Amino acid sequence: MTDLSMIEAAALRADGVVRRTPLLSSPFLDEIAGRPVYAKAEVLQHTGSFKFRGAWSALSALDEATRARGVLAYSSGNHAQGVARAAALFGVPSTIIMPRDAPLMKIDNTRALGAEVVLYDRAGGESREAIGAAISDARGVTLIKPYDEPQVIAGQGTCGLEIAVQAAEAGVAQATVLTCCGGGGLTAGIALALEGHAPGMTVRPVEPEGFDDTAQSLAAGTRLGHGHVEAGFCDAILTGMPGEITFPILERLCGPGIVVTEAEVRAAMREAANRLKLVVEPGGAVALAAALYHGDALAPGPVICTVSGGNVDPAAFAAVLTGA
Amino acid sequence: MTDLSMIEAAALRADGVVRRTPLLSSPFLDEIAGRPVYAKAEVLQHTGSFKFRGAWSALSALDEATRARGVLAYSSGNHAQGVARAAALFGVPSTIIMPRDAPLMKIDNTRALGAEVVLYDRAGGESREAIGAAISDARGVTLIKPYDEPQVIAGQGTCGLEIAVQAAEAGVAQATVLTCCGGGGLTAGIALALEGHAPGMTVRPVEPEGFDDTAQSLAAGTRLGHGHVEAGFCDAILTGMPGEITFPILERLCGPGIVVTEAEVRAAMREAANRLKLVVEPGGAVALAAALYHGDALAPGPVICTVSGGNVDPAAFAAVLTGA
Repeated sequence: MTDLSMIEAAALRADGVVRRTPLLSSPFLDEIAGRPVYAKAEVLQHTGSFKFRGAWSALSALDEATRARGVLAYSSGNHAQGVARAAALFGVPSTIIMPRDAPLMKIDNTRALGAEVVLYDRAGGESREAIGAAISDARGVTLIKPYDEPQVIAGQGTCGLEIAVQAAEAGVAQATVLTCCGGGGLTAGIALALEGHAPGMTVRPVEPEGFDDTAQSLAAGTRLGHGHVEAGFCDAILTGMPGEITFPILERLCGPGIVVTEAEVRAAMREAANRLKLVVEPGGAVALAAALYHGDALAPGPVICTVSGGNVDPAAFAAVLTGA
Repeated sequence: MTDLSMIEAAALRADGVVRRTPLLSSPFLDEIAGRPVYAKAEVLQHTGSFKFRGAWSALSALDEATRARGVLAYSSGNHAQGVARAAALFGVPSTIIMPRDAPLMKIDNTRALGAEVVLYDRAGGESREAIGAAISDARGVTLIKPYDEPQVIAGQGTCGLEIAVQAAEAGVAQATVLTCCGGGGLTAGIALALEGHAPGMTVRPVEPEGFDDTAQSLAAGTRLGHGHVEAGFCDAILTGMPGEITFPILERLCGPGIVVTEAEVRAAMREAANRLKLVVEPGGAVALAAALYHGDALAPGPVICTVSGGNVDPAAFAAVLTGA
């Protein structure tokens, strides 16, 4: 089970490889929110999302002989790119199982980063887990799960260590920390890191409307699924149910989940472009949307939100910018 | 005259206020350029461009009584926002003279940052210098020139100090450093900083086609103007002639200027969005365009380019993204 010492060990293995992303702000965002807003710009991480942290952590924790045989991952696109890039940096092969209807940029990037991409049809009932198990057995490669994997959670937690330091530099000790939440790997990692290094902060997971399995599960005190096919505007964070390993951490450390609308996500993407000069994909903008438009649900005081990832097809991004 | 000690003093005054922007990279950009490319992401600076550095340097160097009377600037938009924000942080009034046809976002932001904006008609022959002198005389405020001002150059030079440190962290000692060049304030400041802190680097100013007064002046060994009205796609860097103070610094320290086409600038803006997740305005993308598409003009080895600013109207940016 991931704990603070595992996150600190992951940070040591990440030193000089994983980027320390900036904590940004803008007086224009503060004015919209009516409070200080800080954005942890993980779109600037390698491969455009925080997922590289977890991938690097997991690969760097493998023994050399195991790692050399190669790794396998299933992902809608950001974990895919993170694992592909980490594998390429280690010089080991990677196989990534991706849904056929993932954003084209994510599929193209994963291939260009050196992975073998296996596409599957999620609407047709194919199971990525079953495909993955078959490949893993046949090739002797190691599966790197996207969130229910202690070393992946530890890697995402390094983002939380940075938030603690950067918030302290900005003079912020008490804050609400809003996270983009799919399976809960980033949320769990940040919550564990802040429990140890910034106990005055409370983590609140944010999800898009219709895919609020984490909010519902936190409210019910047990893991619930929304039962949807995992496709939609916020493609990166549309997991069906909180993770087995992540959920107990969220339940122990996080406040209630927050749910944002697609219109709020689009508005947050525009503000991120105009005010922070960042390209953010829909799933990466949900926490900023909550910071800007759900102040009523938050405790008073500063808010820190993760902004990640940034892998959005240019035409889709342009349509959001122009309000089309 | 600006020298290294003035830049280092400006860096001390900037500590805790000016952002240390990241030096970013992407394997996709390296592949296009055929060499390692590093992008100094000054779009992430306060107000979306490096201009805040020079503005903060100039205002923080004024004695308190002088500063309290207020400041004045003329600018097509990025220096405007930098001075407005710096003045607001000091709690002193600012007046900014801007061309009526500047990008709307730049005019709106400058007002929203607290400045009084005076619009003038540059095509109609009004002189911003004359308007500025009249206001400065009448109000007793201090003019902060956009580039021909030693403390402004010193402030821009703090970007060069960071490049020296960050390049060393990346293991880069020898490199070509490409700068977005208008009046030459950033170029001069960076060249002075690197002369002292990274003598293995050579600065090359980059300009858009049709507005290459610096390249022509460097080739001729004397200041030449292109004689155009200062309006065009790369609005931020369309000065008519190199500065009186900046040019001798460029002549002493820089290699030949590089000229990029509008098509190359548009392509670089798309790459910055897709690969670096940054929103970059046309004038801010010229150095990246040179890094990606003018390798033949560069010495072998790594290239470092400034990427600044990011103040582009959303519709204009969307049109570039979709190739419209």
